Order: sequence, then structure tokens, then C-alpha cells
Amino acid sequence: MTRKQLIEQIRKKQSFLCVGLDTDLEKIPKHLLSESDPVFAFNKAIIDATKDYAIAYKPNLAFYESMGISGLLSLKKTMEYLHNLSSTVFTIADAKRGDIGNTSKHYAKAFLSPDGDFNFDSMTIAPYMGEDSVVPFTTYEGKWVILLALTSNKGAFDFQFIKDIETGRKLFETVLETSKKWGNTDNMMYVVGATKANMLSTIRTLVPDSFLLVPGVGAQGGSLSEVCKYGLNKDCGMLVNSSRGIIYASQNDDFAQCAAAEAHKLQQQMAEELYKINMI
Amino acid sequence: MTRKQLIEQIRKKQSFLCVGLDTDLEKIPKHLLSESDPVFAFNKAIIDATKDYAIAYKPNLAFYESMGISGLLSLKKTMEYLHNLSSTVFTIADAKRGDIGNTSKHYAKAFLSPDGDFNFDSMTIAPYMGEDSVVPFTTYEGKWVILLALTSNKGAFDFQFIKDIETGRKLFETVLETSKKWGNTDNMMYVVGATKANMLSTIRTLVPDSFLLVPGVGAQGGSLSEVCKYGLNKDCGMLVNSSRGIIYASQNDDFAQCAAAEAHKLQQQMAEELYKINMI
Repeated sequence: MTRKQLIEQIRKKQSFLCVGLDTDLEKIPKHLLSESDPVFAFNKAIIDATKDYAIAYKPNLAFYESMGISGLLSLKKTMEYLHNLSSTVFTIADAKRGDIGNTSKHYAKAFLSPDGDFNFDSMTIAPYMGEDSVVPFTTYEGKWVILLALTSNKGAFDFQFIKDIETGRKLFETVLETSKKWGNTDNMMYVVGATKANMLSTIRTLVPDSFLLVPGVGAQGGSLSEVCKYGLNKDCGMLVNSSRGIIYASQNDDFAQCAAAEAHKLQQQMAEELYKINMI
Repeated sequence: MTRKQLIEQIRKKQSFLCVGLDTDLEKIPKHLLSESDPVFAFNKAIIDATKDYAIAYKPNLAFYESMGISGLLSLKKTMEYLHNLSSTVFTIADAKRGDIGNTSKHYAKAFLSPDGDFNFDSMTIAPYMGEDSVVPFTTYEGKWVILLALTSNKGAFDFQFIKDIETGRKLFETVLETSKKWGNTDNMMYVVGATKANMLSTIRTLVPDSFLLVPGVGAQGGSLSEVCKYGLNKDCGMLVNSSRGIIYASQNDDFAQCAAAEAHKLQQQMAEELYKINMI
């Protein structure tokens, strides 16, 4: 999905909501466990219930990999289902990959190739190994790399705030500044955690036009209005993710309706924010 | 495999060679493509040919993931085959994972759990997201996290050498120093690229007793004798990886014999190094 198409969907659905598909057999409603593929059955119900309010879906690879090959088969089916909605939803492989160039090329093929088992629109990448580990993910037409800049967890403070003796910049700022040259605003986004919303104004001075993927709203404690205050740009420029807050809104038979209600609530707040910046 | 068992194997085989299983359908001998599972057939032949000279095998996940679900089935078969040799070889999932704590727990389960499809002894982890992204990988008895410190690629210079304004330490040094507290020398190793062998003496002042996984010897240009000069400690303390130099030593019918010859050559050089430090 191109930037233009993404912005069109944001306007159309009046939303910049991304639903995180962190599907865990221990947390999905018990009645689904008798299905032949409980993970797919859960994902399908969540997608059906939220697709009018969400513009993006983000399966977290760890949850599928932890179920072994069968988890990846469920992911494949989920992606096939999402591809039927492909003109209306953006898909993100939350994979946090990154390795030397030749290896990254293989990871890019695994998740972004239109001929592959998954064919995502984008994937999350860790920046530690630098340019040659990131660039291979920018080479698929209409596909995106989403680079970790400032993450939403406590461990973010271990290294991401280290200040460079030469420039005075924090590591996450250097990642933003340096990586801008590796791609452009049509093929590179950044992960910026909602739990550090006040950092967004600095981040916007470094990457004013880039899209940001913002996790951490809801279960992790980030506030949507804070995030919007500092993070929105003229094209919206954000995908705000909620995982547990939506998909586990209820663990009973009404899980899909409750997920829809939570997604709808967020979509309405997002519509207000988009109205404020004259996007709708 | 515990540290004690690993050191025993090093003494017994007089080797600290790790063979990287970067298995690529475009590079394996053409006659294997008619096998029902060419990737497994190749891996099995390589393992059979090199197992007397190698103490570790390191499948690079990207190569298997890029073949989709079928690649992961080949990996599963490869791991089952390696488990039959389990008391004599150490296995490394070269996966470069790392995410918020709850997600890392799922990645750890995917690759390290004895009940999982793969059951590796260890896996490589990227440090960018800090403590809670790394610690979940240290919780499996007798299993290891192998944390990226200084990588062998060109992109290593983008961020890993940034000096901290407060301590004057380079980022990779801070990663070593900080992460020492997250584990111990029985469950944590570090990736240090052979292409930066002269950095190993500084690294040894920070982590004198830790095992290091050293990629980059051979195809990437690192020198074994340089690496040994600066990196060996009293317990050997290194696993030196060679991938392409061994597994693609020949792309003809004699690929297994040629792989054996290359592995044997490295093992002999390693035996000399172990003799110098009185390990054998």
C-alpha cells in the first residue's frame, strides 16, 4: 500500500487505528479452542468486528512463532483473509528483524515478497546493525520498513537515551537522523512508543513528514490525546496501535462485539483529532 | 547444554568451530533439488560431514523463513537430526530477536522451549530495546542468550561506535557492561564480529570470562589467528563461526567432502590455538 492509498484510507475510515493481533491461546475465549484453527477463528472474528474502524492490522510474530509451525500456518491463513480486504487495510509484520545485508534480504523476502506465504505491506526492524541491515527492506515496491526509534518499554532507557559525545543527540534521535538517508517518507516509518508522548515534539523536528507507528496506547499506559497533541502532522502521519485493549476487551462469547466497541471508541476519538487538523 | 558440557566438547573435539547453516536453494548443489526436502538433505549431508570437527551449528533463521512454512519444516527436521547428536553439539538459532518483555517471552518459548518445534540451546538477540527485552531469554535451564555487541558488517559503524557523553564508552561497550547484570557467564554470550578482531582486547577487559560467538571469519574477511590472539580466554571462551566458507566450499557432487575438508582445516588451526593456551 502506498502512502497516498494509506492517507486515503485514513480519511475514508476517519481513523488511524492499528489493531495488534497478539493472539495467545491462553487468552482467547475458551469456546474457540474446539475450532480446527482457534487462532485463525479468533483473528477472523476480530478482523470482521473491527475492520470498519481500523486501517491497519499488526500480527506480532512472536505469538505465532511460539506456537511452532502450526502458529505460522494460522498466520498465513490470517494474511490470506486480510488480503481479501487489501485495498482497505495496511498490514504490519511486527517482527523486529535486522541482520547483515545478505541476511536481511532473506527476511525481507520472507515477509514482504508478493510471492511469499505472508506478503505483508510492512515490517518492523531493529536498527542496531545499521544501514546494510535496513536497506534491503526498502526495496519492495509499495512496501515499508518500520524502524524502531523510541520503544514503549522500560528497557528503552538502557540504551536509546545515551547521548552522543560528538553531537549531543540521544541514540534514538541519531537513529532517526541517520536512517532518513536510507529511505524516504514513502517507504520508511518509525516506531515511537506512546508511553513517551512528550518526546514526540522533538521527534517531529527530526522527521516532520514521516509516518510513525505508535504502540503503547491502552494496556501499556500511553494516552491517545497526548500522542495526537505532539505527533500528528498534516497528513495525520501516525498509526496508533492497540492490541490487548481491543482483542481481549472480553474473554467471553461477546469478545468480538466488545472488540468492536473498543475499536469504535478509539476511532471516534481519532475522528475528532483528524477533524481538528482539517483532515476530514 | 551447560558451560561445563560446552567446554568438555571443545576439549574433546579440539575445536571451537561453529558451522553456519545459511542454506539457500539457489546455492546448494543442483542434484539435491530433486530430493523431497532439498534443504534438509543438504543440511544432513553437511552435518554428517562436519560433525567431528564442529562443536556448534547455527541455522540462520532468515534463510528458512524466506522459504515460507516449508523452510521452517526443513528447519524442524534439521533440529530433530541435530538433537540425535545433542550431547556433542551446541545449537544456535541465529534469529536476532528482541521485543518488549511479554513478547520476548513468546520468542524464547518459540526457539528455546524443550516442548517446542525447535528446542535450540541458544539464540541471538538484538539489544536495542534493553533489559526487559533480553531477560526472558535467560530463563530456560541450560539455555543461552547470545547478545549482539559488535557486529561484523559495515553498518556496525552507524551506531555501535557512538560514544556516551557521560562515560566515554562506545555503545557496544555499554551494551557489554550493562547487560552483564542481566545474566551470567552460564547463560549469556556475546556476538563479536571477527572483522573487528583488534577490538577484542578491549572487549575482554569488559567480559573476561564470557563466551563470544564470532562470525565473519572467511567470506566476510576476518582472520582466525587474529581473533584467537585477542579473544581466547582460559576456557577458550569463543565459538568461531564459518558459514559460506564451509557449506559452499563446493557446489558440485563433492560438496560434503569439500565442506569436511574446510571444517577439518579450521579445526586443525583451532587445535593449535587450544594447545597454545594449554586447553589440550
